Amino acid sequence: MKRTGFAKAECPVARALDAIGDWWSLLIVRDAFDGLRRFRDFQQNLGIAKGMLTSRLRKLIELGVLEQVEASDGSAYREYVLTKKGRDLFPVVVGLRQWGEAHLYTRGEAHSTLVDRKGQPVGRLVLPSTAGRPLMWSDTQVMKVALKS
Amino acid sequence: MKRTGFAKAECPVARALDAIGDWWSLLIVRDAFDGLRRFRDFQQNLGIAKGMLTSRLRKLIELGVLEQVEASDGSAYREYVLTKKGRDLFPVVVGLRQWGEAHLYTRGEAHSTLVDRKGQPVGRLVLPSTAGRPLMWSDTQVMKVALKS
Repeated sequence: MKRTGFAKAECPVARALDAIGDWWSLLIVRDAFDGLRRFRDFQQNLGIAKGMLTSRLRKLIELGVLEQVEASDGSAYREYVLTKKGRDLFPVVVGLRQWGEAHLYTRGEAHSTLVDRKGQPVGRLVLPSTAGRPLMWSDTQVMKVALKS
Repeated sequence: MKRTGFAKAECPVARALDAIGDWWSLLIVRDAFDGLRRFRDFQQNLGIAKGMLTSRLRKLIELGVLEQVEASDGSAYREYVLTKKGRDLFPVVVGLRQWGEAHLYTRGEAHSTLVDRKGQPVGRLVLPSTAGRPLMWSDTQVMKVALKS
């Protein structure tokens, strides 16, 4: 795959995908949102090979999405937690979840749900205009970077 | 990579990533939101190998994310457009964009921007509670599927 060009892309979508757009990275981030912190827990939950998990965790730390902290129980284990940059991936993970919920399950098929602290289901992600009005995809356009004259 | 398990996952994030979580698929969807419709246009814009583009377009059609339509100018070309299921990926693409904008550019570095029809920048994605209150990641939790007794 030709990937190197996109790390410098003028499109933030391309640059974001270059950074975290592999399947395992976003599943690790999802698990971190769910409160998983230890290598073994990620490994068991994802069924991922240890070498693959090691390389993905290292890349997420280099990117500043995860950081290593001392174990919360005082043991010798290292734990992995989301940084601010990592927590800012929340809308991406929720967007994937809501698209999956809407389109990838048959009627009545069981799936996990995202709820608030009272156990109430959350609403759909909203993209607001600067005035606060919800925008649809067709209300928007991408303004490319102007060529320097 | 062990992927087969996730197409049947109870987690919609995993199932969504199983379906569209490869890098090229989301870039093709992004380009379709930008109005690209023809094989050659995707190919030139992405710098993707033709065989890879062919297989990704075929998969996106099988998934129901893209559909083929007759050329808008009456020529013999086939064109690719987003279905409703494909357009529903808008928050995912915007989420990636906003994360990229916030974290992957140095100060002053140029990038494309998403604007509304009047050219005004859009706001950040908001996850509302059922009562309409904006929720942070820490206001939410994932409710797993209950085991059948």
